[in-house]
Amino acid sequence: MNIDSIKNGIVIDHITAGNGMKLYQLLNLDELDCSVAIIKNVGSSKTTKKDIIKIDADISVDMDILGYVDPGVTINIIKDGKVFDKKKIDLPETLTNVIFCKNPRCITSTENEIEHIFKLSDKEARIYRCVYCETKADQ
Amino acid sequence: MNIDSIKNGIVIDHITAGNGMKLYQLLNLDELDCSVAIIKNVGSSKTTKKDIIKIDADISVDMDILGYVDPGVTINIIKDGKVFDKKKIDLPETLTNVIFCKNPRCITSTENEIEHIFKLSDKEARIYRCVYCETKADQ
Repeated sequence: MNIDSIKNGIVIDHITAGNGMKLYQLLNLDELDCSVAIIKNVGSSKTTKKDIIKIDADISVDMDILGYVDPGVTINIIKDGKVFDKKKIDLPETLTNVIFCKNPRCITSTENEIEHIFKLSDKEARIYRCVYCETKADQ
Repeated sequence: MNIDSIKNGIVIDHITAGNGMKLYQLLNLDELDCSVAIIKNVGSSKTTKKDIIKIDADISVDMDILGYVDPGVTINIIKDGKVFDKKKIDLPETLTNVIFCKNPRCITSTENEIEHIFKLSDKEARIYRCVYCETKADQ
């Protein structure tokens, strides 16, 4: 099952099957007024199954969330019906307000104004640590 | 944005914009292994915007849930790439285990084995009442 190409927008391809709905919610795509499609369990040559999200508007999506949840996705920027730019993404070095520190003694637990910032401390093991208290993020 | 026709499956069309995700969850489509697409805010001639769900497998969907949540939807049954059957649905006369009685004195609150059954008591006002205690369902 494919979707006709969109005129101007973004296609998030090669989403690990099952992650499409998670990304839809984390990226707040439910709040968009434009046409959005999520297709799950699409047959793919690269992996057995994949999910795809197509957004029919020239908006920016949070690459940090995408990279954190599913670093293997491909982003296609569509302009005038053609692929204008293709991006592979990677695990982001820094996550700002994407995940939240659960250590009750961390300064972010008492000071509401402070941003929750995590740094990638081990790329292989995909471990992020809070920049204030070094607490490891849940995976 | 359209989706290429599916070979064998179901297309739920003319979903009121915004109801697509609700139906996806109520119909437990997240549990399906087959390819499923939800497209929201599609331009439609009938209404301004609509949602569409396409299921690429010959499964049965709960017509009572569809009729209760969005009686204006159209069901297209696809076989061998062609529309084999087209169904309009209506408000169901009876709802079994779709909505649940909230009256703490209702027999369904104390007896767990009993099915929650509601009957349509006023079609114009879309009012359903519990068959045991007559309590009106929330809308």
